Amino acid sequence: MPTQILESKAAAKKLLCSLPSRTRVALVPTMGSLHAGHLSLIKRARQDADFVVVSIFVNPLQFGKNEDFSRYPRPFEKDFALCQNESVDAIFHPDARDIFSGSFGSTIEGGPLTKLYCGKSRPGHFAGVLTIVSMLFHIIKPHVAYFGEKDFQQLFLIKRMVRDLCFDIDIVPMPIVREADGLAMSSRNIYLDGPGRRSALALSQAIKAAREAVQTPEITRKEVIHRATAVLEKYPEVRKDYVSLVDERTLLPLGDEVLKTARLLLAAYVCNEPAVRLIDNALLTPTSS
Amino acid sequence: MPTQILESKAAAKKLLCSLPSRTRVALVPTMGSLHAGHLSLIKRARQDADFVVVSIFVNPLQFGKNEDFSRYPRPFEKDFALCQNESVDAIFHPDARDIFSGSFGSTIEGGPLTKLYCGKSRPGHFAGVLTIVSMLFHIIKPHVAYFGEKDFQQLFLIKRMVRDLCFDIDIVPMPIVREADGLAMSSRNIYLDGPGRRSALALSQAIKAAREAVQTPEITRKEVIHRATAVLEKYPEVRKDYVSLVDERTLLPLGDEVLKTARLLLAAYVCNEPAVRLIDNALLTPTSS
Repeated sequence: MPTQILESKAAAKKLLCSLPSRTRVALVPTMGSLHAGHLSLIKRARQDADFVVVSIFVNPLQFGKNEDFSRYPRPFEKDFALCQNESVDAIFHPDARDIFSGSFGSTIEGGPLTKLYCGKSRPGHFAGVLTIVSMLFHIIKPHVAYFGEKDFQQLFLIKRMVRDLCFDIDIVPMPIVREADGLAMSSRNIYLDGPGRRSALALSQAIKAAREAVQTPEITRKEVIHRATAVLEKYPEVRKDYVSLVDERTLLPLGDEVLKTARLLLAAYVCNEPAVRLIDNALLTPTSS
Repeated sequence: MPTQILESKAAAKKLLCSLPSRTRVALVPTMGSLHAGHLSLIKRARQDADFVVVSIFVNPLQFGKNEDFSRYPRPFEKDFALCQNESVDAIFHPDARDIFSGSFGSTIEGGPLTKLYCGKSRPGHFAGVLTIVSMLFHIIKPHVAYFGEKDFQQLFLIKRMVRDLCFDIDIVPMPIVREADGLAMSSRNIYLDGPGRRSALALSQAIKAAREAVQTPEITRKEVIHRATAVLEKYPEVRKDYVSLVDERTLLPLGDEVLKTARLLLAAYVCNEPAVRLIDNALLTPTSS
């Protein structure tokens, strides 16, 4: 079956209502510019569900005033071909005018955790994410939805929203997919020029240093952060946004002891013009180690 | 069929999953202490839908610190009999521990309109309402839900939340039901003693004065509010919270001209000990006039 394109809420509703009852519907929410990370979500959805919807919508609510909303890549033809190739049943690709009512005024807030880490440098970002995700959930009514661990804080807040607001939807996290040299896949990598692309390795290299650091018995949180930060600082074209060591069960900063649930979260600007903000994260003490 | 009692999200899910597909489900969200106003919603739901769920949950999120959460009436046996009598299919009557996860932190905010009128004296109230209503919508998954016009600001914000967040649910507003002497039905009327009960008429009498006022050609908004306020002030045991004239299409304060869409909103404390806060509202120029 060819992949259908749904350009409005009404078109989505019509199609979804036509499905046999008990059809298991999967949603992979994206902003398009699909890469291997997205494809891993789509492949997993294809395995799990009867009907796979990929949403492609560059959500204005989650961009700040001086961020890259207008230049964010929108290669729809290429995305469509990739979805077709993965036997996606439908792409939900609405216009913003179809999504937002004229007097739009209701948002979902995620509380104090939305002010930390990425939320600190991107005020309003997570409210924008939670709001659009809830809208997509209400429109597509999936049984299951897939999110990448690259945006770990986002994943955490979405899982909590689903639990808090009693959405009857399974949230499946999927591991970060990386380039051969370690750079985490991101639609924003397209912004990187040659030197920027090399500088971008600072993030995965910082994670590598932190992973090595936690092999030292009784190392403190501070020292782990220090070693990861030192790697970022070795790259003159890289400007640190934050390096934090959190308990991945609560997303709160870790105490001094580095627990098995320690996850390093970091963000940095790679100084192209305009600067490209990249994020990465990793569990430092994977249970497999 | 006897009315079933569902005491948890899991029990609700199990029952709802057992219904034949295409069953039209109606939800009447309440905090219990059912009166004739609630019964009008339930009767209408019974006419419209295949399966009627009444939720009875005194929602802590929508009460302020010094409000009446703990003394709010909870006559469950009586409510059950009333639901049974109206052939309600199920009562959703969960425990707060079933509803709120330990690390609860996601809320729905309704923007600046939640700071006006009732929101001014009840900070956080509407976020509490919108949040619990969205939770009930996710748990019961109704096709249609019923709300009384007595809580007009609440109804407005819920309708807007449903539109904004793309809930696929019809919201049916139902007219205020009044006692023979004009007092709007409310679960809080139970708090009124003899003199308080007489003073409570101040609100419907103020509406009556405003209705008469708008018969005067070219009367201004200010004058209408003045006349309604004067009525409240005639009752020494009544303390005004607010008297506002709004455009019911936007809920914003009306300009000086009194339009056909002018709705008077008011709230007052009736000075029993502790004071009882009552609200009322009316369209001043009904299309039928």
